[in-house]
Amino acid sequence: MSSGIVPLPAAPAVRPREDRRLADRIALSAASGRGARVRTEDVRAWLAERRRAHVFHVERIPFAELGEWRFEQGTGNLVHRSGRFFTVEGMHVVELDGPSGDGPYREWQQPVVRQPEVGILGILAKEFDGVLHFLMQAKMEPGNANLLQLSPTVQATRSNYTGAHRGTDVKLIAHFFRPDPDRVVVDVLQSEQGSWFYRKTNRNMIVETVDDVPELDDFRWLTLGQIAELLHEDDVVNMNARTVLSCLPYRDTSPGALLSDAQLLSWFTGERSRHDVCAERVPLADVRGWKRGAEAIEHEDGRYFKVVAVSVRAGNREVVSWDQPLVEPVGLGTAAFLVREIDGVPHVLVHARAEGGFLDTVELAPTVQCTPGNYTHLPPSDRPPFLDAVLDAPPSHILYQAVLSEEGGRFLNARSRYLVVEADDAPLDPPPAYTWVTPGQLTALTRHGHYVNVEARTLLACLNAAMARPRGEQRHGGGHR
Amino acid sequence: MSSGIVPLPAAPAVRPREDRRLADRIALSAASGRGARVRTEDVRAWLAERRRAHVFHVERIPFAELGEWRFEQGTGNLVHRSGRFFTVEGMHVVELDGPSGDGPYREWQQPVVRQPEVGILGILAKEFDGVLHFLMQAKMEPGNANLLQLSPTVQATRSNYTGAHRGTDVKLIAHFFRPDPDRVVVDVLQSEQGSWFYRKTNRNMIVETVDDVPELDDFRWLTLGQIAELLHEDDVVNMNARTVLSCLPYRDTSPGALLSDAQLLSWFTGERSRHDVCAERVPLADVRGWKRGAEAIEHEDGRYFKVVAVSVRAGNREVVSWDQPLVEPVGLGTAAFLVREIDGVPHVLVHARAEGGFLDTVELAPTVQCTPGNYTHLPPSDRPPFLDAVLDAPPSHILYQAVLSEEGGRFLNARSRYLVVEADDAPLDPPPAYTWVTPGQLTALTRHGHYVNVEARTLLACLNAAMARPRGEQRHGGGHR
Repeated sequence: MSSGIVPLPAAPAVRPREDRRLADRIALSAASGRGARVRTEDVRAWLAERRRAHVFHVERIPFAELGEWRFEQGTGNLVHRSGRFFTVEGMHVVELDGPSGDGPYREWQQPVVRQPEVGILGILAKEFDGVLHFLMQAKMEPGNANLLQLSPTVQATRSNYTGAHRGTDVKLIAHFFRPDPDRVVVDVLQSEQGSWFYRKTNRNMIVETVDDVPELDDFRWLTLGQIAELLHEDDVVNMNARTVLSCLPYRDTSPGALLSDAQLLSWFTGERSRHDVCAERVPLADVRGWKRGAEAIEHEDGRYFKVVAVSVRAGNREVVSWDQPLVEPVGLGTAAFLVREIDGVPHVLVHARAEGGFLDTVELAPTVQCTPGNYTHLPPSDRPPFLDAVLDAPPSHILYQAVLSEEGGRFLNARSRYLVVEADDAPLDPPPAYTWVTPGQLTALTRHGHYVNVEARTLLACLNAAMARPRGEQRHGGGHR
Repeated sequence: MSSGIVPLPAAPAVRPREDRRLADRIALSAASGRGARVRTEDVRAWLAERRRAHVFHVERIPFAELGEWRFEQGTGNLVHRSGRFFTVEGMHVVELDGPSGDGPYREWQQPVVRQPEVGILGILAKEFDGVLHFLMQAKMEPGNANLLQLSPTVQATRSNYTGAHRGTDVKLIAHFFRPDPDRVVVDVLQSEQGSWFYRKTNRNMIVETVDDVPELDDFRWLTLGQIAELLHEDDVVNMNARTVLSCLPYRDTSPGALLSDAQLLSWFTGERSRHDVCAERVPLADVRGWKRGAEAIEHEDGRYFKVVAVSVRAGNREVVSWDQPLVEPVGLGTAAFLVREIDGVPHVLVHARAEGGFLDTVELAPTVQCTPGNYTHLPPSDRPPFLDAVLDAPPSHILYQAVLSEEGGRFLNARSRYLVVEADDAPLDPPPAYTWVTPGQLTALTRHGHYVNVEARTLLACLNAAMARPRGEQRHGGGHR
């Protein structure tokens, strides 16, 4: 450049629509059980050390002690004084067709978390020794049972990165805010829990860098193989990390699927068309069937979840404190894929599930997604389909299981047992609203938003993690039941 | 079967995820300028004959003469007495970021058509002499300038096919209601005009049949090549036919694109993330900036559109009559793609456009989509980008043009000049919210909803039609300017 000769700009060139090398690089990282930067067996010690390094106290408080939050006059909505972050409001849902066809309609009201701004969940990737590593953060969140979990490099709401509060985790946000198009691996808006959130989406991103990245105490570079190993442990990999990882464009090595992609999309279009779900926001004060006490808003029969409040004191050098509402489910959830081989190709059974908070009627959900405790008062015939097949599965049929937490910034002790269960006797012609798809088809759908719900994305990440293990280790593997 | 031997059910088999033969069959139909059933030059006479065969009188009436429709007490919404069909309500839109970045925010109110139920737009396909033909209907609709246009085989709202009124065009609905998965060519929920509709989607379907189909007077089988020829004429192929045809999975024969698919999706995710559009329904009576007269609801400055009422008398043997509101734009619209070759591959310039009625912030729109008359009061710097490049294009650069109508069941005289304009001097690095994509990439996006808006889908159909012509005929072709 110092020669004074300015190179001509390169002529614009078309490139292949698909980057075929990327799938190889992902496969190599998934096959790499050892990382270049930290041994997997040392990650646990590092997480424990980070847990000790930070002050992090979470205490339940009555609503009256919430400093920055209040029940808004008139609506009774729970809002922050700044008008930012999120609100707890009411939702009125009318479903004209039942989940299994033109059945009886359902109608209910419930509290719901509303956070209209799109946050960023971003994982930075970089090659070490020719293998892609992913920068994971040891991050504390008030709702996590064990407080600290393995998280994306950044998880930032728009309030975060425009300065509504100073999160230390947004140091690396620059990589994601206007990403280099040549370095984007994943970039898609995905929904979150439609039972608890009103139309929440986050931007799921993986961006590669060739820059030097400062080695920070709360961050470690891990291969996909290492993360897969950690995904077999309870409450280690957080929800945000799982959803981002589920969107990785793994190569489909199968010769095909029971349904072609066009048939699958047509089936999905049919499911979306026959559901007529109308969800409207209503004032929290008007929500029927729920009661507000001094310390919780809860369902009259004690089912589903509570809205509670906590006070948090956190920091390592500079200690900050805040308080906030959290949604606390009443029981341990179950989310499971039944999996079976069809013509030698593994398929999972997905459910086109309507949730009140979805932007658009239904998304593909796990075969089973429920809190079994909410169904104990119902006769067996009203239990969710396939729940017993999951709960009664012999250990030898369990390809994956672990108890994992949902987002600890909004949910308190929201834990589900995630399972992948081999069920070669499951019906090839399943009931309405269910169909068999390959993991490759699910992966292809995660390139777009509003197809695969967050629980199914977690299971897709778990399934990829289970596949990364040698076959003998898949069974009876983790879970620490 | 009469032998008493029951054949074993075939073992379930996986199939390839993509049906590669389908693209060949589509290409063959597109290359077939002659049909097996009717000559293209006879279609016009048939349309004229069908126009004569039907009684169809449309008369403007004051709102007070609407028999089955009324302004609802309190809200002032325009509703049908049955509560079915559609309603005209108000919409309040707040856009926090301007269309070209973090610009000034916009806020406005307007009337909007709300029709929450999902209709079916279905075209039946069948092979004659080894070539796919498509069953097109000569259908009258009150808002069409020439009353009768070439329409899909069926266009049915849920009210139609569940019997809210008896449409004769729903005879063939059975092919689409629960389609044979092995015969589905197109099946996707697509948005419609976000400036006039509140979150409207229709199910766009093409289903193949091998059955005998009765030869009805109002229906003709045409090849894609024949339809392409007719798409070059003004007001012949209706909007519903165009959007369904735009979703046909044409093969992408290009070696690639300026942006890989992952880069394009990332760019789109960025556009969706940086827009914050909140559109809420408000009572029509409260809409600011619009006034209700005896015969029209119109904008205070006479811009955009009016809501009017018509009385319709229709039928061939049995004459039925009804009245209904229609939305009438105030001027001729312009919708255009700029197209240029990059590295020898044609690309079109798309615009990530926010419309208040979209389900989700932005969709990909034509390079230019506006009613030029709405901008005459503004200084040149406030005119839509690229509008002058389209309006001033020399005839030799116009690859396609025709004046086409929007949906005649909801819109009155809603006509736009659709153009595809060669612009090899257009900037390779366009302004924010614009990017270059190949027709193959647009086609791939039409497999999913809420990516490509209805005007861009029309232009995609027109582009495919222009490509089907021998190169010499592409210029100065139709349009009858």
